[in-house]
Amino acid sequence: MPAKAVSLHPSAARRGGTHDVLDRELVDDLVAGNRTLARLGVLDAFGHISVRDPRNPHHYLISRSIAPESVTAADILLLDLDSQIVDPKDEGKLLYRERFIHGEIYKARPDVNAVVHSHSPTVVPFTVTRAKLRPLLHNAGFLGLGVPLFEIRNHAGDGTDLMILTPRLGKDLAQKLGKAAVVLMRGHGDSVVGPSLPNAVFRAYYTEINARQLLAAITIGGPINFMTRAEALTSSDAMLRASARPWTLWRKRALAELREEEQG
Amino acid sequence: MPAKAVSLHPSAARRGGTHDVLDRELVDDLVAGNRTLARLGVLDAFGHISVRDPRNPHHYLISRSIAPESVTAADILLLDLDSQIVDPKDEGKLLYRERFIHGEIYKARPDVNAVVHSHSPTVVPFTVTRAKLRPLLHNAGFLGLGVPLFEIRNHAGDGTDLMILTPRLGKDLAQKLGKAAVVLMRGHGDSVVGPSLPNAVFRAYYTEINARQLLAAITIGGPINFMTRAEALTSSDAMLRASARPWTLWRKRALAELREEEQG
Amino acid sequence: MPAKAVSLHPSAARRGGTHDVLDRELVDDLVAGNRTLARLGVLDAFGHISVRDPRNPHHYLISRSIAPESVTAADILLLDLDSQIVDPKDEGKLLYRERFIHGEIYKARPDVNAVVHSHSPTVVPFTVTRAKLRPLLHNAGFLGLGVPLFEIRNHAGDGTDLMILTPRLGKDLAQKLGKAAVVLMRGHGDSVVGPSLPNAVFRAYYTEINARQLLAAITIGGPINFMTRAEALTSSDAMLRASARPWTLWRKRALAELREEEQG
Amino acid sequence: MPAKAVSLHPSAARRGGTHDVLDRELVDDLVAGNRTLARLGVLDAFGHISVRDPRNPHHYLISRSIAPESVTAADILLLDLDSQIVDPKDEGKLLYRERFIHGEIYKARPDVNAVVHSHSPTVVPFTVTRAKLRPLLHNAGFLGLGVPLFEIRNHAGDGTDLMILTPRLGKDLAQKLGKAAVVLMRGHGDSVVGPSLPNAVFRAYYTEINARQLLAAITIGGPINFMTRAEALTSSDAMLRASARPWTLWRKRALAELREEEQG
Repeated sequence: MPAKAVSLHPSAARRGGTHDVLDRELVDDLVAGNRTLARLGVLDAFGHISVRDPRNPHHYLISRSIAPESVTAADILLLDLDSQIVDPKDEGKLLYRERFIHGEIYKARPDVNAVVHSHSPTVVPFTVTRAKLRPLLHNAGFLGLGVPLFEIRNHAGDGTDLMILTPRLGKDLAQKLGKAAVVLMRGHGDSVVGPSLPNAVFRAYYTEINARQLLAAITIGGPINFMTRAEALTSSDAMLRASARPWTLWRKRALAELREEEQG
Repeated sequence: MPAKAVSLHPSAARRGGTHDVLDRELVDDLVAGNRTLARLGVLDAFGHISVRDPRNPHHYLISRSIAPESVTAADILLLDLDSQIVDPKDEGKLLYRERFIHGEIYKARPDVNAVVHSHSPTVVPFTVTRAKLRPLLHNAGFLGLGVPLFEIRNHAGDGTDLMILTPRLGKDLAQKLGKAAVVLMRGHGDSVVGPSLPNAVFRAYYTEINARQLLAAITIGGPINFMTRAEALTSSDAMLRASARPWTLWRKRALAELREEEQG
Repeated sequence: MPAKAVSLHPSAARRGGTHDVLDRELVDDLVAGNRTLARLGVLDAFGHISVRDPRNPHHYLISRSIAPESVTAADILLLDLDSQIVDPKDEGKLLYRERFIHGEIYKARPDVNAVVHSHSPTVVPFTVTRAKLRPLLHNAGFLGLGVPLFEIRNHAGDGTDLMILTPRLGKDLAQKLGKAAVVLMRGHGDSVVGPSLPNAVFRAYYTEINARQLLAAITIGGPINFMTRAEALTSSDAMLRASARPWTLWRKRALAELREEEQG
Repeated sequence: MPAKAVSLHPSAARRGGTHDVLDRELVDDLVAGNRTLARLGVLDAFGHISVRDPRNPHHYLISRSIAPESVTAADILLLDLDSQIVDPKDEGKLLYRERFIHGEIYKARPDVNAVVHSHSPTVVPFTVTRAKLRPLLHNAGFLGLGVPLFEIRNHAGDGTDLMILTPRLGKDLAQKLGKAAVVLMRGHGDSVVGPSLPNAVFRAYYTEINARQLLAAITIGGPINFMTRAEALTSSDAMLRASARPWTLWRKRALAELREEEQG
């Protein structure tokens, strides 16, 4: 996760927003992550990605409340771990109502530096059935760290809109996540974490891919030869490094498409 | 739903059609809705969208009979609730043969301001089987208002082409819809309504998404943890507001692509 | 099916091929049909479309042997019903090895003016299982005319490559087709016919769509409420007219993309 | 497989890499194969393709370690059959860690001139279940040569990341492949070989297509009318020639998109 250069992001500097104090590379990472997961079909017009501020672990970067595929550097805000605006200049901007997912996970998990919340389309069916979303593809070995299910009815009763709208529910969700990489959210989607933004994006993508392949394996019929726990852990470690390869491609492509959009 | 500005739509004004009296923002909404649902795979080359005229609740706007993905502002017509042409200048234009779906629903449901009729591909299988298309994804909570099935054989006998070609059948369909947001049409598709165009487009999209996810959940195997009625109603209300987020993105993208098409 | 104008196709005229005697509109129809079914995923890099010559029912137009998505007007040839080259200038061009499908169907079915042969991806599974590909979507009512299965083992023994490489096999296939609109070819795909090119293209597309929706209905679980024979026949007739709507869109889009390709 | 011309690849010559000694046509084939299988969804950001050097059967060409969809001529390297760099100028470039798949297969199979390793998405589920990936589509007749499954646990114990990271594992995989065209890799993907690059690319694509169609056939329900062994072998032979048709299209399209990318 690049955190060295502190050169200004031109367009941000022009707007005089909080961006002149944000790391340009990291902002671009976050923009690219949003657009990549939208293009790959993991994020629909909802969902959000955040990254912990490498300069201050009590802050995180996230877009203001817009659809992920339209996020640009100018939309990135800094929030504290109570998910409140840090820079007074950002006051009045519309924030994601479910931002507590991010803040509360950062509080509970010092090892986590990036969070993706999505309505991952093939993951949702696994949140309302009893089949376990276990890893079968080596890229998804991180699922071997456990895939707990957050049932909001147990925390907020019957009658919610299933969303994480309070710090309290964010804390409950973070607790359910525990030490895992993914927590399923019933009838809603999932939240995926990683030690870096590229890794969290990678994991969000391969959670969806593993769900699709497990659905196919169930169709073919069992028994299914899942990865063992040892294989899952080894693969999860290996993928921390290997996620650099897709990330290089994804980031470059996303930023190229953004430039085209801004010029076109 | 924007209904304030009455500035002329330039291209319409040039053609001297009915558009000089139509609200430009609303016409653009309707064009964007058509193109968005075509791009998202809900509408094929058939299907249509309408919006009630905010100036006169006894009129509605709809395209002349062309494929939704090719609709432009110049194609939008005004019909009355008997689905007849209002402006004599539009006489002779080819109308959707199933336009009675729209007119009769507007008559029966004063709360409805937009209607989408589509061959939503994953919804069709739920119109010919006995599984109920119940909501499992929070975005689709509106399905909790009921998803009645219109069996045309009960209304027009065996031997039709399954289409709603008369005011009488339109009325029967509207009656079957009742107070729901969606009515399934056997072997044909569905009709989806909402208090605003963005919301009806949102609902048409998430009806398809919920159908896909329910199909996957059935493949995984039950029991399926559907939303409760209380959750569905709460979510449906929440999504009336939340549909603004995808709509902002969808509308902007559709109109940008249209501009490109007109220039290219 | 346009057959009036006999204006020359500019690029064909320049090349001095058989095109100066072919109808430009019809050649463009055939080019558009090829590209449309490739874009819609019905045709892969194999498969072919033909149209009977309206000036001489004993001739038909078809591309030389190239992938459908790359067909241009300059690739269109005239064959007789024995599937032999008509114009000596075309001698030496590579022909589709399975062209006998087309010639023999035109011989057997005077009512047929266009033939599509494809590896339609969701149709293939229905050629190797016992479920009947019956119509459930009104656009696919033509399937109610019957969907016979051609099992090449019964005609050429075990050990073929499943392809229709001789006039004899073409004749057997045409006989199996009978009066239907579609004949399934085991482990291979289908051949779809219609009274016009737009209608045959329409039918090839909705055969694939009906197969996808039937697969979903089987997944949901029966009994499946198929169209009755009366509904199927009424719908099939209605779609002869209704296929004009998608065709207008598809043709325009295909030819626009071709122009872009030729300029780019 | 073009191996005649030895004209220099302009951009490679400019960079003074190993390319001035590589055949330009062959390098372009390899670039086109990478981009084609990425576009067709067989290769994700991982996976790799190689081709044996026609001038020296103890060498093969492969990209440096980047995502297949971003490979250009400048990324192509020459390795020996121990999968070590041949040209000292290439020292220090990052190599695919699983390149031993390629080298060891070339050692074991003199008839093989191209290898594709992928995470083919619908093939993976067949690597963790007991259903045999038998051929049902004539394009996939080569599957009739057998589809052995490589279970890495039997060779490297429990606890690996499932990857082929050593010459020893590459050799074991090549041995499991035997005389087949495809070897499945449990929880990982497959490796597909052919006598030429166009044929190996063709086979990798139709392995995925056959898997999708078999999944659909299983959903419909058996018994499934698979190709007989005689049909599979005849079809496999026929497709050695027939693969030229898609290849012509795929190569042209991939190189056109690359040119656009380099200019844009």
